[in-house]
Amino acid sequence: MILINGVETDHIAVNDRGFQYGDGLFETIEIVDGKPVFLEQHLLRLSTDCCKLNIPKPYIKQLTDEIHHICKDSKQAVVKIIITRGVGGRGYRQPEAIQPTRVVSLHPFPEYPKSHSEQGINARFCNTRLGLNPALAGVKHLNRLEQIMARAEWDDPTIQEGIISDINDHVIEGTMTNIFYVKDSIIYTATLTLSGVSGVMRGIIKALIAEHKLTLIEHDYHKDVLLAADEVFVCNAIIGIWPIRQIENVSFTVGNVTSQLQTWLVHSKEQVCVDAT
Amino acid sequence: MILINGVETDHIAVNDRGFQYGDGLFETIEIVDGKPVFLEQHLLRLSTDCCKLNIPKPYIKQLTDEIHHICKDSKQAVVKIIITRGVGGRGYRQPEAIQPTRVVSLHPFPEYPKSHSEQGINARFCNTRLGLNPALAGVKHLNRLEQIMARAEWDDPTIQEGIISDINDHVIEGTMTNIFYVKDSIIYTATLTLSGVSGVMRGIIKALIAEHKLTLIEHDYHKDVLLAADEVFVCNAIIGIWPIRQIENVSFTVGNVTSQLQTWLVHSKEQVCVDAT
Repeated sequence: MILINGVETDHIAVNDRGFQYGDGLFETIEIVDGKPVFLEQHLLRLSTDCCKLNIPKPYIKQLTDEIHHICKDSKQAVVKIIITRGVGGRGYRQPEAIQPTRVVSLHPFPEYPKSHSEQGINARFCNTRLGLNPALAGVKHLNRLEQIMARAEWDDPTIQEGIISDINDHVIEGTMTNIFYVKDSIIYTATLTLSGVSGVMRGIIKALIAEHKLTLIEHDYHKDVLLAADEVFVCNAIIGIWPIRQIENVSFTVGNVTSQLQTWLVHSKEQVCVDAT
Repeated sequence: MILINGVETDHIAVNDRGFQYGDGLFETIEIVDGKPVFLEQHLLRLSTDCCKLNIPKPYIKQLTDEIHHICKDSKQAVVKIIITRGVGGRGYRQPEAIQPTRVVSLHPFPEYPKSHSEQGINARFCNTRLGLNPALAGVKHLNRLEQIMARAEWDDPTIQEGIISDINDHVIEGTMTNIFYVKDSIIYTATLTLSGVSGVMRGIIKALIAEHKLTLIEHDYHKDVLLAADEVFVCNAIIGIWPIRQIENVSFTVGNVTSQLQTWLVHSKEQVCVDAT
């Protein structure tokens, strides 16, 4: 099911600025037992990103109602939200009265084997480099050609994620995930001030790290630092946390910090599901 | 009129990757007396950009037929072409069999006063900075949030264009134009290796400069260099060449080189219109 501005349809106006220019943003939310997981965090990020792009924020009650309506019968699914600057004329100049387009769509939950969470995944380094763009860094906007080019680099089904560096060769993220590593019990991740998407799950993991008084350092680092780590994991709102067991020829164990974060994350999810009931 | 894959409609599938990710590219072509101007150059750039994004090239005969069909009764108009990677599932991974979406749409020609070409325009420097992205630099793709943010900076109708620099403070282009300047009879423009759109009109002007044995230097330069120029002009496929008469508080004259290029451009347009008859 797809709701566009509250109406069930699967078509959009061709002069929508989302189609013409990628002029909008999106959210991808896990659905468990008919309920959106970490909805509050997703809506907060959506609102923040609307502010950054100067797109009027959607009316949250209406959007929340649509999300609940669309997912209420799903045991496990994904809801995607797209907000664009709405329809407009030819040219970059935005319409004087912006009427954003709001798309809420339901998708099947991807069938990932349990081993991805438990034994970890294989990853590779992408050749595609992320550009440097402080104005858009962190925002989950619709200008996603970089991720598409990076994801198009491999077909091998035994490789679950590609790790992308920026043009300065700093490791930034996976094609669909954020990436953390652990060295001597300290957790590290990229800063995302010049590129990358600041994922909702990344924020939740940062909060768990702070709550449990572990140490997190956000910094710029190269791939040799990643390859020398004790543990590496990737995360997003759909997969949760996947340990990485191998990057090209270098192996990692699923370590204590990663496992502990996975356990805390399960508790957090249970808590928000209870809260939402 | 809008043709989508040859069918007259104004709606697109919401799961088109153009809408989901800005996964595509576009062309904007001037129509004079029912004929597309510099069509060959536009189709060449479209094909080149398709290659760069690994999107299958449209069948040129079919696309050309659609362009001619849509514009045949227009005295002066704009045709916009959008090519996307077509419909696909959720996620950045491209479909195994890509069936591109092809949009050909007719638009009114913008009503610019003749004085823009003759006496020149006023411009300003934008605060928005272009990111650095060598993989996508030059391509007229659908990821255009930077241009939208730059164009949203001003409302003053007496200012016709905003000049954008990159994060290294190198002057790159206008929000909808490429920019050239003249100093001591030598013509200069930005390199576009790290950002910017390599416009069809920019290519035509480069060819005119070469044909008439003037000197062109493509280099990185800062705004103080631009402000010290003898002549400055912007260009695109719709406006042709507009001299800049003022950037903020600095005035320029409409110089000989700019006027000469305008004259040569008029001759080139007449020639391609005759050739296309």
